[in-house]
Amino acid sequence: AIAEYLSCDLPYKLSCDDVFITSGCTQAIDVALAMLARPGANVLIPRPGFPIYELCATFRRLEIRYYDLLPENGWEVDLDSVEALADQNTVGFVIINPGNPCGNVYSYQHLKKIAETAEKLKIPVIADEVYGHLVFGDNPFVPMGVFGSMVPVLTLGSLSKRWIVPGWRLGWFVINDPSCMFKNPKIIERIKKYFDILGGPATFIQAAVPRIIEQTDNVFFKKTINTLKMTSDICWDMIKEIPCLTCPQKPQGSMAAMIKLNISSLEDISDDIDFCFRLAKEESVIILPGK
Amino acid sequence: AIAEYLSCDLPYKLSCDDVFITSGCTQAIDVALAMLARPGANVLIPRPGFPIYELCATFRRLEIRYYDLLPENGWEVDLDSVEALADQNTVGFVIINPGNPCGNVYSYQHLKKIAETAEKLKIPVIADEVYGHLVFGDNPFVPMGVFGSMVPVLTLGSLSKRWIVPGWRLGWFVINDPSCMFKNPKIIERIKKYFDILGGPATFIQAAVPRIIEQTDNVFFKKTINTLKMTSDICWDMIKEIPCLTCPQKPQGSMAAMIKLNISSLEDISDDIDFCFRLAKEESVIILPGK
Repeated sequence: AIAEYLSCDLPYKLSCDDVFITSGCTQAIDVALAMLARPGANVLIPRPGFPIYELCATFRRLEIRYYDLLPENGWEVDLDSVEALADQNTVGFVIINPGNPCGNVYSYQHLKKIAETAEKLKIPVIADEVYGHLVFGDNPFVPMGVFGSMVPVLTLGSLSKRWIVPGWRLGWFVINDPSCMFKNPKIIERIKKYFDILGGPATFIQAAVPRIIEQTDNVFFKKTINTLKMTSDICWDMIKEIPCLTCPQKPQGSMAAMIKLNISSLEDISDDIDFCFRLAKEESVIILPGK
Repeated sequence: AIAEYLSCDLPYKLSCDDVFITSGCTQAIDVALAMLARPGANVLIPRPGFPIYELCATFRRLEIRYYDLLPENGWEVDLDSVEALADQNTVGFVIINPGNPCGNVYSYQHLKKIAETAEKLKIPVIADEVYGHLVFGDNPFVPMGVFGSMVPVLTLGSLSKRWIVPGWRLGWFVINDPSCMFKNPKIIERIKKYFDILGGPATFIQAAVPRIIEQTDNVFFKKTINTLKMTSDICWDMIKEIPCLTCPQKPQGSMAAMIKLNISSLEDISDDIDFCFRLAKEESVIILPGK
């Protein structure tokens, strides 16, 4: 069911051997990095990004190299910095689209440029699409897998966001590689061993997946998107009125927005962590520090 | 609830910091080995044993050293071979009680000898008690944790066997170490990081655990034990009548029995794997090869 669902957007069919069920999106991230890890290897990770990548890369003994996202450019990938950072030991290039924590949604053109860069550098793209389809701006959601014939794409996804079932721990790790540049029986063997050891989601949740994926009414998805758009618009409009906060780009997707804090104009606040603690204490509003 | 449940059998109280919820018993095994692993380290594993130990140890780059179980002695641990195998790089000594696949249940006296040996060798005991309480022979079930003040004991358990919910993926990894010989904040930190990356069971299963543990009727457990005893007795009685099969010890617990195959008296069967395949094909009986 997952292979079928993900293939809808792709110019080619996925097989069951390409799709591995994981215990949530953190395990999907971990299996991707565990699979790519080898002594001396490094991985390119976006900054700002999602902290689990740093944790997993360290755990799997992968050197982390941060490339920048460009706030003035809709948080697009700074492809020059990617080219400057990559070397013959680079084993993966992580992108998060729709973006966490920046709320970016990349255009087809930008994703194509990402694929071209990865192709030139000969490194697979790890496409974190945990927020896939949760978009409400100008750009439609384009799965990175559509460029799978240019460069191997490892796509990560999960039920938790689009179907709003956090804690069910059901995700997927997908190899989009129709030209089989990357796939070989040894890699598949290694992934299967990983799951033999670490297990997957509870069996009765697995059993529910086909019905969840095939029978969820479109009205449910639309309602979620409307709520996300509405709250994101409120956030955007109200932040514009607060002098010491700036949102460099209106969020177009996911469930997050990245806000710049002008510390110099805030009295008695030392940094973003201090700001978050004080906001929680004084206003019961919980946000995450960008640091 | 799990700390409370496990403390019932122990001469001391477990705290919540001693008990970590895992995604099934395989993750409990993996976190134990991941926690103990360091370059050059080795771990002592029983033979016959449970294959996941070999897989996890290899994955975590731990050298595996097999010690023997003695069939003529109720599958007790050959403590002389344990002493001969251990050295300054030995980081753990795995015992499985009630035993998988041998159906053994160790006496208090034998477990005490195990603790004394581990204490002498200065290595923690990893006590796989996944089949805990599922005993129906002469020996009662004694949790290894009762010897926690002699030697650190890492106990592994799960809901799946005693509560018969395979696939729910809810287990535990418990540090029984009242004298804190072993426990230090760094180890706890390392374990917590492990779960940050690899996650735990689905949240709604976690939420059900207190009720499952506190309110399961004793009648349910007794019924399971009766069924296990009955099937085990049938197995024992009928195997005695089959000339080429021997069961060296009547199973006293768990859900398995270890059977010796006298290949020489079997026509046209090359080994145990061949026997298993043929039995599945000809009689639709599925058993696992001892190999």
